[in-house]
Amino acid sequence: MKLKTLLTASALIALPGLALAQEAPSFDEIGPYIMTTLLFCMAGFLVFFMAAGFAMLEGGLVRSKNVTMQMTKNIALFSIAAIMYWLVGFNTMYPGDFNGYFAIGGQTVLDPVGVAAADAALDYASIGSDFFFQLVFVAATASIVSGAVAERIKLWPFLIFVVVLTGIMYPISGSWQWGGGWLSEAGFSDFAGSTVVHSVGGWAALAGVIVLGPRLGKYKDGKINPMPGSNLALATLGTFILWLGWFGFNGGSQLAMGTVGDVSDVSRIFANTNMAAAAGAVTALILTQVLYSKPDLTMVLNGALAGLVSITAEPLAPTLFGALWIGAVGGVIVVFTVPLLDKLKIDDVVGAIPVHLFAGIWGTIAVIFYGEASIVTQLTGIVAYGVFTFLGSLILWFILKAVMGIRVSEEDEMTGLDMAELGMEAYPEFSKG
Amino acid sequence: MKLKTLLTASALIALPGLALAQEAPSFDEIGPYIMTTLLFCMAGFLVFFMAAGFAMLEGGLVRSKNVTMQMTKNIALFSIAAIMYWLVGFNTMYPGDFNGYFAIGGQTVLDPVGVAAADAALDYASIGSDFFFQLVFVAATASIVSGAVAERIKLWPFLIFVVVLTGIMYPISGSWQWGGGWLSEAGFSDFAGSTVVHSVGGWAALAGVIVLGPRLGKYKDGKINPMPGSNLALATLGTFILWLGWFGFNGGSQLAMGTVGDVSDVSRIFANTNMAAAAGAVTALILTQVLYSKPDLTMVLNGALAGLVSITAEPLAPTLFGALWIGAVGGVIVVFTVPLLDKLKIDDVVGAIPVHLFAGIWGTIAVIFYGEASIVTQLTGIVAYGVFTFLGSLILWFILKAVMGIRVSEEDEMTGLDMAELGMEAYPEFSKG
Amino acid sequence: MKLKTLLTASALIALPGLALAQEAPSFDEIGPYIMTTLLFCMAGFLVFFMAAGFAMLEGGLVRSKNVTMQMTKNIALFSIAAIMYWLVGFNTMYPGDFNGYFAIGGQTVLDPVGVAAADAALDYASIGSDFFFQLVFVAATASIVSGAVAERIKLWPFLIFVVVLTGIMYPISGSWQWGGGWLSEAGFSDFAGSTVVHSVGGWAALAGVIVLGPRLGKYKDGKINPMPGSNLALATLGTFILWLGWFGFNGGSQLAMGTVGDVSDVSRIFANTNMAAAAGAVTALILTQVLYSKPDLTMVLNGALAGLVSITAEPLAPTLFGALWIGAVGGVIVVFTVPLLDKLKIDDVVGAIPVHLFAGIWGTIAVIFYGEASIVTQLTGIVAYGVFTFLGSLILWFILKAVMGIRVSEEDEMTGLDMAELGMEAYPEFSKG
Repeated sequence: MKLKTLLTASALIALPGLALAQEAPSFDEIGPYIMTTLLFCMAGFLVFFMAAGFAMLEGGLVRSKNVTMQMTKNIALFSIAAIMYWLVGFNTMYPGDFNGYFAIGGQTVLDPVGVAAADAALDYASIGSDFFFQLVFVAATASIVSGAVAERIKLWPFLIFVVVLTGIMYPISGSWQWGGGWLSEAGFSDFAGSTVVHSVGGWAALAGVIVLGPRLGKYKDGKINPMPGSNLALATLGTFILWLGWFGFNGGSQLAMGTVGDVSDVSRIFANTNMAAAAGAVTALILTQVLYSKPDLTMVLNGALAGLVSITAEPLAPTLFGALWIGAVGGVIVVFTVPLLDKLKIDDVVGAIPVHLFAGIWGTIAVIFYGEASIVTQLTGIVAYGVFTFLGSLILWFILKAVMGIRVSEEDEMTGLDMAELGMEAYPEFSKG
Repeated sequence: MKLKTLLTASALIALPGLALAQEAPSFDEIGPYIMTTLLFCMAGFLVFFMAAGFAMLEGGLVRSKNVTMQMTKNIALFSIAAIMYWLVGFNTMYPGDFNGYFAIGGQTVLDPVGVAAADAALDYASIGSDFFFQLVFVAATASIVSGAVAERIKLWPFLIFVVVLTGIMYPISGSWQWGGGWLSEAGFSDFAGSTVVHSVGGWAALAGVIVLGPRLGKYKDGKINPMPGSNLALATLGTFILWLGWFGFNGGSQLAMGTVGDVSDVSRIFANTNMAAAAGAVTALILTQVLYSKPDLTMVLNGALAGLVSITAEPLAPTLFGALWIGAVGGVIVVFTVPLLDKLKIDDVVGAIPVHLFAGIWGTIAVIFYGEASIVTQLTGIVAYGVFTFLGSLILWFILKAVMGIRVSEEDEMTGLDMAELGMEAYPEFSKG
Repeated sequence: MKLKTLLTASALIALPGLALAQEAPSFDEIGPYIMTTLLFCMAGFLVFFMAAGFAMLEGGLVRSKNVTMQMTKNIALFSIAAIMYWLVGFNTMYPGDFNGYFAIGGQTVLDPVGVAAADAALDYASIGSDFFFQLVFVAATASIVSGAVAERIKLWPFLIFVVVLTGIMYPISGSWQWGGGWLSEAGFSDFAGSTVVHSVGGWAALAGVIVLGPRLGKYKDGKINPMPGSNLALATLGTFILWLGWFGFNGGSQLAMGTVGDVSDVSRIFANTNMAAAAGAVTALILTQVLYSKPDLTMVLNGALAGLVSITAEPLAPTLFGALWIGAVGGVIVVFTVPLLDKLKIDDVVGAIPVHLFAGIWGTIAVIFYGEASIVTQLTGIVAYGVFTFLGSLILWFILKAVMGIRVSEEDEMTGLDMAELGMEAYPEFSKG
């Protein structure tokens, strides 16, 4: 159905949506519902696009022999998350409208088509918009894991992990805070998910890389062998896309746009989010210049991302200066913890653990400087999510390892996952130097 | 003109737009117009970005010697579509405000600058927003053709085909449905264009590849020679961009956002569109694992796209489960028809015909399960668009072949179109393996 | 804080934003504020994404040995711009609320969290949204310089230049027009910044390339040696991203979306912006075919961008035909001035000066055909910005050259900046042909 059809009188009657216009309620009544639903749709498509950002970032930071696999994992994990979150996740995470703790088979049901103003929860937004917005968040959690365990994990065990993470683990722990659960009641504060999303992804990733072990030859004869990413232009694009998506991630988490206060807050969040990313990037730039005499692009990219993760727990309350120093600390964290992990022989291919776990913890703590949360409550939340997700993931990775194996053979790892597991190179024509 | 200028009293008087604020009509009256115009702008820029998605998808799936050509074709076809749709297309497709059947020289005219509420069609949206939204749709149709005929077509005959397709053929057949024409009156249902846009692109592509013939060496000695894409990271990026754009494609086709019912429907469409894409991708992933023992990334990408095309004819009415199975069937179609075309020696470089034509037909039929359309009407529409577009395209391709030739010489095809036709390589420094 | 939490009564009271809903003022009063704030947020994220567009365009047009540097420069310059514009830029540019001419240390302060309708400037929009929107503009100016001086400039002098450009020079000259300064009072017209943003970037770039000198071997023995870009797929992607961002750039510069007139104008700007880009691309396509017998993709990309720059000074008033011919002239300018610069041995790596300076001047002049500005006033503005920015930049580049040197050594330039300055290749595995 398109424009001119609508302009004919007969069509007007036939269309449920427009028929409402006849008896349209006042915008004072419906305006906030419309604006907030729009916020979720808009923020949702921005966060959706982060799936592309993660894919490009990770695809750029792995070696070219593993790029097809990284692409496959990223599009598959997003798709699986979308299905699992509908099947059980959303209703498990937001149990308010249901009465069970865990929603087995409780598939999400959207608003009816052409819902009338009289039938809608006018103090809020459409279920469809909220579901879509929450769904793209859970996919981000899974994307975080994907990067850390790259270049040696088998496809299917990884995807089974994603099924459990997005359908069960994330929704359960998410409900503690965003489902009105015990942490929410205890006063834990995590506006857009430094802990609920990013640390959770980071903990799951940490468990994964520990169980998997480092890539062949990464730590050999006491030396750390750099394995440079194959395409830094792609990694930079991925970072910019993630930065873009973060406006939706944090801005949409205001969860309302229908009042002067709410829309102003959304814009304040945009400004703060941007500032934290910028501060993280500049900090990493300067620090790597000072420490290594050469700025390190991958650190700058991860510095920007760490700034973003750092501000995610409280992107609203800080001043712009607050966002700046919170983001800058994120940049510092990345520069110092990336080599630290290497010293511990924890092989995180893309730096996902420093960026999402360490900066996520920092961001959750930083809330105390601008919000009303206490350090005890914040630490309680951090530990609770850590214990639950890390232990749960560890158990799951071990089960997967025992049942089907999670790591490719040495030979396949040398060959590269693209040819060994998928039989398809990402750049078949570019000869390798 | 920027902020602070506006805040001075003198500037306020000077600016037509703000002067209206003095005598501002009630939001009850103007709210729907504003929201729907915004929907078209927002959905429009998302669909615009699909031009980049098609370019990246196609650029990633052709061999590196033809990438510059593919880029040139994609930016040129979008630009030509923009001009032709203004010159004749829009007014041909939506003849309501005009009285001719075909609008020769009937250039689109936008609303006057600073149009007053009193002068606007307040039950709808601005012409500018609608024109922009419709324009980006027609460009998508042309992009579909571009991928199928890649790697052996000459630039200029292709662009002349685009001129006719976007200026004449698409607008005429589009008017049957979206211009309030005979198919619309017959009850044919195609919400966002599984048939009107995607099948039409697919039929035009099918005619093109038949007239062109397969690439040299593609089908040789009874064997199908795979010609792998040169950059699967780029192809994946393109798929994600298309997926993003589809929220605008389907969501914007609600054509209204100013009531509770409409904005809720838009969000429902977002959720369904996402689900269909996810289901298409997962289906292709599993099927290729089962059939070939190795998941095939290009099939997964095309599976997601086929899921999107499948839900496009009715993204609103289905439940999320409906979107899932409709999209999943799209994934099945792609996995089975891509090799089928190869058996028929129909050489579609990027899988455009399975994705846009076959899944488009499927999506149009699937409407009967959730909408009010009858199978007879749906088949009538499918056949009508097929006959008109396929025959029209066939004739046009034959004329172009007779008049100027549409295929490069064998030597040029071996060399690659980039050096032969354009004298410029896409990746001049990366030596070919 | 997420959905279900909000729906509990206790949470409703606790949240400042939603508490307002109790005493919600009429949408007639708050609607325009909400819509305009939303416009700035939406347009702002689109313009933000132009940073990625510039990075990809420039990364695709330099040789592969300089891609890491180009990425580093682009993410760093955006980040520096974000910090400098907060620290001094915004308050220098819009001095209305302050009383000094230059705002040393006058950091931008956002609206309080949960600002009440009673406390907001309801005739406009939130400071946060406006700040964010203006900030992404200044970053664009710096990006323009980055491309022109590529492949031989040292990182740190470039970044120091960016500090001064974004913190001091751009805000001072910007205030002449958008801060309600003398050019604004004189009647100079530059809607979205053909001169204020694009020419300014172009002048700064011109000064830079003159002081730097051409790349080694570019002009040798009286011949112009082409140095083809390493990745035209990336350059095309960058162009599409810039085109996308331009809808925000020009559309957002309407600076209001809360009336029928304003939202219609925004949509009119979208349509015109798109048309100008299309016309620029098609013109460059046809002209390069006619002049060189082969269409030139890089010219087509720059043609589209020149069309966009050309329409930026007045994207609202022209008809679609007006946008077409204004954009087409932009395409002509690019095709003829790119070789002209080479003849003058001015080595602009990506064509930034033709696109942003020459087409920017053209666009500023073209205002006289559709707006009320006189040619004298327009030329006054063009010259004023030119003299100030070119001389200021020239002095700054010379100081930087004297103090720390701005150009890498010949050996480093041959090696490539990536290894020489950063020790990191963008494509370490792809062997060079």
